[in-house]
Amino acid sequence: MSNNVLDLALIPGDGIGPEVTAEALKVLKATLGEDNVKATEYGLGAEHWLATGETLTDQTLEAIRGHQAILFGAVGAAPNDTRIPSGLLEREILLKLRFAFDHAVNFRPSVLYPGAQSPLANPGDIDFVVFREGTEGLYVGNGGSMRTGTPHEVANETSVNTAYGVERVVRAAFEYAQQRDRKHVTLLHKHNVLVHAGHLWNRIVNEVGEEFPDVTHDYLHVDAAMIFLTTDPSRFDVILTDNMFGDIVTDLAAAVTGGIGLAASGNLNINGTAPSMYEPVHGSAPDIAGTQQADPTAAILSAAILLEQEGYADAAQRVHKAVWEDLAARDTSARTTQQVGDAIAAQV
Amino acid sequence: MSNNVLDLALIPGDGIGPEVTAEALKVLKATLGEDNVKATEYGLGAEHWLATGETLTDQTLEAIRGHQAILFGAVGAAPNDTRIPSGLLEREILLKLRFAFDHAVNFRPSVLYPGAQSPLANPGDIDFVVFREGTEGLYVGNGGSMRTGTPHEVANETSVNTAYGVERVVRAAFEYAQQRDRKHVTLLHKHNVLVHAGHLWNRIVNEVGEEFPDVTHDYLHVDAAMIFLTTDPSRFDVILTDNMFGDIVTDLAAAVTGGIGLAASGNLNINGTAPSMYEPVHGSAPDIAGTQQADPTAAILSAAILLEQEGYADAAQRVHKAVWEDLAARDTSARTTQQVGDAIAAQV
Ligand SMILES: CC(C)[C@H](C(=O)O)[C@@H](O)C(=O)O
Ligand SMILES: CC(C)[C@H](C(=O)O)[C@@H](O)C(=O)O
Repeated sequence: MSNNVLDLALIPGDGIGPEVTAEALKVLKATLGEDNVKATEYGLGAEHWLATGETLTDQTLEAIRGHQAILFGAVGAAPNDTRIPSGLLEREILLKLRFAFDHAVNFRPSVLYPGAQSPLANPGDIDFVVFREGTEGLYVGNGGSMRTGTPHEVANETSVNTAYGVERVVRAAFEYAQQRDRKHVTLLHKHNVLVHAGHLWNRIVNEVGEEFPDVTHDYLHVDAAMIFLTTDPSRFDVILTDNMFGDIVTDLAAAVTGGIGLAASGNLNINGTAPSMYEPVHGSAPDIAGTQQADPTAAILSAAILLEQEGYADAAQRVHKAVWEDLAARDTSARTTQQVGDAIAAQV
Repeated sequence: MSNNVLDLALIPGDGIGPEVTAEALKVLKATLGEDNVKATEYGLGAEHWLATGETLTDQTLEAIRGHQAILFGAVGAAPNDTRIPSGLLEREILLKLRFAFDHAVNFRPSVLYPGAQSPLANPGDIDFVVFREGTEGLYVGNGGSMRTGTPHEVANETSVNTAYGVERVVRAAFEYAQQRDRKHVTLLHKHNVLVHAGHLWNRIVNEVGEEFPDVTHDYLHVDAAMIFLTTDPSRFDVILTDNMFGDIVTDLAAAVTGGIGLAASGNLNINGTAPSMYEPVHGSAPDIAGTQQADPTAAILSAAILLEQEGYADAAQRVHKAVWEDLAARDTSARTTQQVGDAIAAQV
């Protein structure tokens, strides 16, 4: 595969998105060779919306669909920018891409890298991956309100969970766990309260688990997981959970491994019907946009996941090693976004 | 008020529940005087269910309603006890009480007590209170499934939010914040995804906030709150959130303040239509039940919240002070549940 050109859709987005994706692209090119990476940029986000009133048209969506993979920065306006309805860009760009391209698995590794500053006194040796379901749950937009704006308003949000959607992320988690040393899957849910969705998740985990006799699995209530993630995060190997719990848990996981500046992710289409999308877990951080203060490492590690998933395993290893060495050598002197990217690109 | 007899319903429950509530009752009696506390015990939980097939009958519920307040231990069978359907006791006892007695506000303070072992390297001076909505959201049991048990199952869970329910917990949070030094309320939600519920929460916070010009307020996505709760928890004063997010956030809050062994709560009926219920945040911990290893401090601090809320402010202060002193003097030598209760009771 690696002698084909990697054909990317690049969506830099807002805030620090363009700065960090520029470095991720630099590292991809340094790894595969300048001519082996083709990136087509799509200018989506706050500016585009302000200029055109468009978030992501069907036409642009179809153009993006034609690429092998998507490298995504971040979208989201500054919180004090009242011109842009809150959450609009996240929903109509980021979530639209995840749903339109059927990103069944939101793959989010949590590793305590050398030199990373965990807020925990004794973080231990953290190395787990969260398999967050990506196309269902409370994220389906299945809500509404009545008597809106009155003292009698009722506002509902429905979490929709299907055996089809749950089974594929469960299977992906078990397959992945089977490749790892500890071969252990932990389901996080809240089945004592969310009886119906919880039953479904439990059933599918038990059923699929039987097909993987060498993989052990257990269950934790999502609230109890908060305690273990702060007191004993090294106990986890593969965490499996739904879309909303996964959103919450992966930010905590990022925090305990030294911050959102290192947290990478892949939104994976696992049946080959559309491109997967790779993005740092962090947002657009409008407060530091354009200042070259953002750490591009999360975007670069997302590019490493891209390489791994798109069939460039050796190249992925080289990026990982370069990041690992760069992190180990970091001191307190501040580097610009570009300097971090240059240093990692020089190592791959 | 303190010359009236405090008439309590005592629900010790399962596991360590009876051990820790015994110490909380001991401290209440030491504080108000043996004859000024009357406790009527209700034997609910795993054993009662196994013997009778009953969780909490309407008749027992009405008997409990006749008391001034409820002191609750914990319910829940051992996870490997397959005789008891998972979550049944939690739903049909604990949640039934919260809903039947209209516990609008789940009041959960998070304080880093002296000597408490936070897992954070630099916890700072943590002192906030979570106002968790107690009667709505994903906890209403408004779910269901179709094609259950088949590869075509769909399982839904609906979060129901009303202006009435949101307004009363928002108002309670602002009133409480107004009594505090920092006078600051932080709403946690996920309004970029849960648009309808998020809109309702935002609207009510803004409306009620205008009535409290001396109280400031801001907003955080619940996922971002994970990061601040682990990197800078002392920034929070009053946290306001829905039932499910509150469940998750209060376990993290308990963890960063040194563990669930110290986390206390009050399920408050704020319109006087039924008794409020005071309970440690921890569960029944069947693994250490009967061994006198449980820390009764969370139950004793829940009794302090009871005193405060039921009109015994001075007594509440004395319990707080005794707990504070006991915690400050703790060394690594293990004490039994009873010894901790005795020590605190001797100080009040
Ligand atoms: C921006 C937002 C919609 C998104 C989410 O909630 O999934 C983000 O928090 C994430 O985790 O990728
Ligand atoms: C036992 C369970 C139903 C309960 C809840 O989810 O509210 C517990 O976790 C809590 O926080 O009090």
